[in-house]
Amino acid sequence: MDGRDWGKFLLPYEQAVEELKVKFKALRSELKARDEYAPIEFVTGRVKRISSILDKARRLSVPMDRIDTDIEDIAGIRIMCQFVDDIHRVAELIRHRKDLVLVYEKDYITNFKESGYRSYHLIVEYPVQTALGSMPVLAEIQIRTLAMNFWATIEHSLNYKYRDQLPPHVRDRLRKASEAAFQLDNEMSSIRQEIVHAQQDFEESSVI
Amino acid sequence: MDGRDWGKFLLPYEQAVEELKVKFKALRSELKARDEYAPIEFVTGRVKRISSILDKARRLSVPMDRIDTDIEDIAGIRIMCQFVDDIHRVAELIRHRKDLVLVYEKDYITNFKESGYRSYHLIVEYPVQTALGSMPVLAEIQIRTLAMNFWATIEHSLNYKYRDQLPPHVRDRLRKASEAAFQLDNEMSSIRQEIVHAQQDFEESSVI
Amino acid sequence: MDGRDWGKFLLPYEQAVEELKVKFKALRSELKARDEYAPIEFVTGRVKRISSILDKARRLSVPMDRIDTDIEDIAGIRIMCQFVDDIHRVAELIRHRKDLVLVYEKDYITNFKESGYRSYHLIVEYPVQTALGSMPVLAEIQIRTLAMNFWATIEHSLNYKYRDQLPPHVRDRLRKASEAAFQLDNEMSSIRQEIVHAQQDFEESSVI
Amino acid sequence: MDGRDWGKFLLPYEQAVEELKVKFKALRSELKARDEYAPIEFVTGRVKRISSILDKARRLSVPMDRIDTDIEDIAGIRIMCQFVDDIHRVAELIRHRKDLVLVYEKDYITNFKESGYRSYHLIVEYPVQTALGSMPVLAEIQIRTLAMNFWATIEHSLNYKYRDQLPPHVRDRLRKASEAAFQLDNEMSSIRQEIVHAQQDFEESSVI
Repeated sequence: MDGRDWGKFLLPYEQAVEELKVKFKALRSELKARDEYAPIEFVTGRVKRISSILDKARRLSVPMDRIDTDIEDIAGIRIMCQFVDDIHRVAELIRHRKDLVLVYEKDYITNFKESGYRSYHLIVEYPVQTALGSMPVLAEIQIRTLAMNFWATIEHSLNYKYRDQLPPHVRDRLRKASEAAFQLDNEMSSIRQEIVHAQQDFEESSVI
Repeated sequence: MDGRDWGKFLLPYEQAVEELKVKFKALRSELKARDEYAPIEFVTGRVKRISSILDKARRLSVPMDRIDTDIEDIAGIRIMCQFVDDIHRVAELIRHRKDLVLVYEKDYITNFKESGYRSYHLIVEYPVQTALGSMPVLAEIQIRTLAMNFWATIEHSLNYKYRDQLPPHVRDRLRKASEAAFQLDNEMSSIRQEIVHAQQDFEESSVI
Repeated sequence: MDGRDWGKFLLPYEQAVEELKVKFKALRSELKARDEYAPIEFVTGRVKRISSILDKARRLSVPMDRIDTDIEDIAGIRIMCQFVDDIHRVAELIRHRKDLVLVYEKDYITNFKESGYRSYHLIVEYPVQTALGSMPVLAEIQIRTLAMNFWATIEHSLNYKYRDQLPPHVRDRLRKASEAAFQLDNEMSSIRQEIVHAQQDFEESSVI
Repeated sequence: MDGRDWGKFLLPYEQAVEELKVKFKALRSELKARDEYAPIEFVTGRVKRISSILDKARRLSVPMDRIDTDIEDIAGIRIMCQFVDDIHRVAELIRHRKDLVLVYEKDYITNFKESGYRSYHLIVEYPVQTALGSMPVLAEIQIRTLAMNFWATIEHSLNYKYRDQLPPHVRDRLRKASEAAFQLDNEMSSIRQEIVHAQQDFEESSVI
């Protein structure tokens, strides 16, 4: 480890996570208060642990003085949705915000990872106001359905236990589980459209 | 509605929910701090809305003066687990607590509902200290896997939209989704045992 | 009352209060984590009640369609400090922020109100990101010592009980109490300088 | 330091503080919801830092294996009141609770410390439910007016800076400040009674 004071290094990231959590929770409350459909079920956030930052820097050959620009998920926000379509609506709401700048997007929904991982990632730059002035930090916003999150939570704890060296039969089972989660989402998505249609029918009939 | 002041009626239930949430979150933190496996992923809680209490009283023919003894889920706590086996460990931890009295249990895991609903329910009596003295309130603690919760969350929003009159094809799809969620849990459960075995192997080998 | 949906009207103000509370609490944590003196003891916030907004609009003859521009304290933040000098340091930190625009300042410390009220107010414009786009809202940030806050809290509850018609002898007592609070602050301020001097002596002596 | 795992040692104390904070905040909310006067302004809590526990054990010659029985303020709760009389009402409410056992009381209001410190302390035993079973922990509940708290907060930070060796002129000033705070409380107390009388007059006149 270099001589860096990691506690101080992480301060703006902790602040970014706190602020973004409050903001996305408010977005959900606001939509509910407007009697609109809220595509957000719940929001979590975390700052990456120092040991994980160092592991990742080593794995990706990131020099220590470029950690803040080259490791994009030190500040991480996770937004959970009921339906796959909700993910795109949330991404669209984020693209229109004026309090952050979109850097780029990674669509692991259309192109899901070989492991079975599915999620939509937005890398954003968020300006944090510190006692030393304004400071932009990178944050990764992951948007997922509840099923994707359920699967990813378990995959993460398995990878942590096996240190990313999953035995083949565990890997197979995880992939099958991912397919089941995928079908679950599809099944639900088809009902979502029927709900929308049912509601449109209702509104049209009440006009007559 | 009777002349009851519902705001005041719900006060001890709100207090019970707040206290039980803090207590079960602390249980999770405690186990993690002891470097033990924490069978709790996260905890939520809510007080039933007045309109839902009245609906339920009507449906079950509960007279107004027996709402507090006959409607058991006015205070509701939900505990989410990663694996099905964790549910039984959480139930066991609750049975040993000295700050509540177990009234009875409902095992919708072994005997799941026709709708596909799976969950383990404990009805408990929890004494709340109010400004007027100690007051026992009933609370329902639901314990579920993440997959069960994912399914139940969506079923709940569908039932809310359709007012419990689900169209047959929606009902069918939900049942299929429930089966998929069930298989997901089974798949995961089998890996759980392999993890435990793998860890035991590791610990034994490191003794030699 | 006009036909306005007050719940929706207050949404961006509630959001502004939540975000600003999180931000000023983070400022305190950040300074402490940097081993610097944190001039902030604690932070509170509230949205003005609808009845109070309407009272104030009537009292100041503000037409209903100008409430958002002419009533500046619908969103209110309160920052408590240990010493009078800290107030100016906090004000300076706020003036340098890039996430809000200072509209104007009211110095009730130098020029305190006849009632005995002392506090430093900054009226700021804070942009809230809503589902409908970015929306600037006015917020009043009050900065006070603990003694000023102690006095103001009690004055507020008295005014509430007497509906701003304080009996003369109560008003007199409050004014005397305000003077006592003022002397308390002065006494403390003089010790503050001695602490700073003592610390400077210590640092100088340790150079030799 | 002995071989003790302090993180684990402090777990039940952290739990006790969290639970008691939630409970006393609920007491305030409950009284307000009942339209009764709430003698509680706000509630804070903290677990004593390990370094402070060790300092105190050394100062009081407490052997390491008796820290949990002989140091009574490892878990600390602070309840702030508007008026001196409120302190006794809060103490009375605590004495009637069934979820804790009163061990003894220290009345630093009637008999204030030479330093000028005033506060009412209740030492209680509170049973925490841990994963290992029920465990009683000692907690100190301090009840104070806002003025007492204002003074004590500043005294604490001075003592921390001077390591309990306050220079004589600082000590004198603190004592004078304590007297001013005392007079402030007296002044306020006398108005409190007038408020009560005024309200009684109002209620009696409205009967006629």
